[in-house]
Amino acid sequence: MTNCLRPADPVGRLLTDPEVATPAFVIDDAKLQVNLDCAKEKAARLGVTLRPHLKTHKSIEIARRQMLSPEGPATVSTLAEARYFAENGVKDLIYAVGIAPQKLADVAAIREAGCDLKIILDNVAAAKAVSAFCAGRDVTIPVLIEVDCDGHRSGVRPESELLIEIARALTDGAELAGVFTHAGASYDVENLAVIRRAAANERDGIVTAANRLREAGFEVRIVSIGSTPTMTHAEDETGVTEIRAGVYALGDLFMMNLGVVPMDRIAGTVLCTVIGHQPEKGQVIVDAGWMAMSRDRGTARQHCDFGYGLVCDVDGRPLRGCDIRMTGANQEHGIIEAAAGDRLKPEDLPVGTRLRIMPNHACPTAAPYEKLLLVNEEGRVTAALDHVRGW
Amino acid sequence: MTNCLRPADPVGRLLTDPEVATPAFVIDDAKLQVNLDCAKEKAARLGVTLRPHLKTHKSIEIARRQMLSPEGPATVSTLAEARYFAENGVKDLIYAVGIAPQKLADVAAIREAGCDLKIILDNVAAAKAVSAFCAGRDVTIPVLIEVDCDGHRSGVRPESELLIEIARALTDGAELAGVFTHAGASYDVENLAVIRRAAANERDGIVTAANRLREAGFEVRIVSIGSTPTMTHAEDETGVTEIRAGVYALGDLFMMNLGVVPMDRIAGTVLCTVIGHQPEKGQVIVDAGWMAMSRDRGTARQHCDFGYGLVCDVDGRPLRGCDIRMTGANQEHGIIEAAAGDRLKPEDLPVGTRLRIMPNHACPTAAPYEKLLLVNEEGRVTAALDHVRGW
Repeated sequence: MTNCLRPADPVGRLLTDPEVATPAFVIDDAKLQVNLDCAKEKAARLGVTLRPHLKTHKSIEIARRQMLSPEGPATVSTLAEARYFAENGVKDLIYAVGIAPQKLADVAAIREAGCDLKIILDNVAAAKAVSAFCAGRDVTIPVLIEVDCDGHRSGVRPESELLIEIARALTDGAELAGVFTHAGASYDVENLAVIRRAAANERDGIVTAANRLREAGFEVRIVSIGSTPTMTHAEDETGVTEIRAGVYALGDLFMMNLGVVPMDRIAGTVLCTVIGHQPEKGQVIVDAGWMAMSRDRGTARQHCDFGYGLVCDVDGRPLRGCDIRMTGANQEHGIIEAAAGDRLKPEDLPVGTRLRIMPNHACPTAAPYEKLLLVNEEGRVTAALDHVRGW
Repeated sequence: MTNCLRPADPVGRLLTDPEVATPAFVIDDAKLQVNLDCAKEKAARLGVTLRPHLKTHKSIEIARRQMLSPEGPATVSTLAEARYFAENGVKDLIYAVGIAPQKLADVAAIREAGCDLKIILDNVAAAKAVSAFCAGRDVTIPVLIEVDCDGHRSGVRPESELLIEIARALTDGAELAGVFTHAGASYDVENLAVIRRAAANERDGIVTAANRLREAGFEVRIVSIGSTPTMTHAEDETGVTEIRAGVYALGDLFMMNLGVVPMDRIAGTVLCTVIGHQPEKGQVIVDAGWMAMSRDRGTARQHCDFGYGLVCDVDGRPLRGCDIRMTGANQEHGIIEAAAGDRLKPEDLPVGTRLRIMPNHACPTAAPYEKLLLVNEEGRVTAALDHVRGW
């Protein structure tokens, strides 16, 4: 790459400086720190180990602040994340997606490199495949059985006979390490009492599964639960050993609508620039479309629909009492309008104005950016963080 | 990175081999070639220059097959794309998003490196900013005025006084190069007669704008239109000099529903692996969720809703007459079900089965992958293509 084509370095610049190219994914460092601290405190109060899910930001620098130690523990959603964090010194990971037998060689290689990577599965076929893989190579792979506590997605029911059958199918180096669940249904209801019940249900389901396995003669070391909503509102995790959660680090509008992250702790936003207007429609056009914001429209089915995002000034304060939203998006264009108040005029947000947009969902929004920009309270970029993309 | 952590090289492997890690974005080379050839033939038949939009795949190898010459012309949606293609020898580009004044230094650097990068804008403020930038540095930047032919998004109306005002505001090195429009509204109706009218309207709007500028004394060299639907169904482009289109290269379910790309020419699919089942719900779980498929649900508002994608066997043939779809997705999990026929049973698609999923929209789906895999008719990976991500 010739130097003249390399974009300017944003570090040390203000978010209003042209050297900070837009769109950019910007993380408010102070808010991030509060979010990380709160989760550590909450896990400590519940008496469980925090095993943060790193899929939201996929950055080692944030992970080091988020984990209990630079070596972990943590959770990942892809083997690319597992490799990246292992190379950066994390030594205790769970790959939290049911294993495909074709991935076992990669899992073994990461383990061989010194990271205790654990896998999950929820069926006898996968258990047999892991056992056969380990037997053929004389390696050990720790396995957690995925439990379905709420009918959300995958896993076996805590009371099912299948749970015991899977444990029995783990032989040779395929070592039963514990049980694993995720209360995904806790995302569906904007009601704190319901989320609290989901947390209790998540705990009851996983503890039931762990105890049934113990009664059947198996050792169950790890009893792993987690989601940001249930972690935030859980009151008692007796019988659980560790909790996983991820999106709390950055927060987003979906979690705010759920009552899980207050608006003033949404740390991840998209910095963009006004590029034009459609005055007769009251629209402002910016250089962040759905590639920059993601296609996630999670708030569309909640009590407050924020479109593609809530529009804030460059300091991160919502404009006009949260009335201004990204109502439409194309690949690299966002359309910004007033939801209820007076139509926007070009002079309200002239061409070149910088804005920050709170996203529906932090995980898909942060994913495509080459770097994640940390900003301090002055609005100055203090670091351009590396993170892992793809698979 | 230690070698033991580097994933296997997929090139030379079959899509069923474990060395092809999933999820992967797979491009059927034969179908791609038909799509590229058809667009060249169509543009030639219309008597206009093809300036393909490279935002769909963002890969130089595909671009070289897609463009009329290795030096272009072509269209890009980000300055990262402009840099990448310029570094790879493309010398004639339009950056097809209204310019933000803060980006002019980057534009000038890319031009300085030998690429004739042109910009677009639709307002006097931006025109003045470009003029002031050029005057201060004694550089030239060619500008196309964006015209709004159908009320879709941005641009000035062909008959508006603003069109002439913007041209007058271009001074010093800010050089009026032409006019530019995009019939975005052609995506909204699944009716070929309506798409044909949208194409005629796109042409009429841009030719009106060009002629009005000429009557006002301006030279208008480039008269640029384009979208995949209007290019496919346009019958007469008299007065137009060039046509831009992008998604036709890969095709997708949205374009198929529109009647623009036949199903057997959808070239881009996501390869994934079955990781589990929920037999009582008739669900199959795969290792491709919305990160791999994108959150785009464009077919939800069309006559046939394919959920997160249409499920095909590993050779790319739709299963059970298009009845099997990805009905739900989480970050790295996809849920596959029968739409109308018998429920899926675990033995229908055992753990480890490889599938290919046709996406709603090729552009967001291809974007996050580190490499795009070209496959031949045998199902063997012939190349892992580089492409550009982010901004």
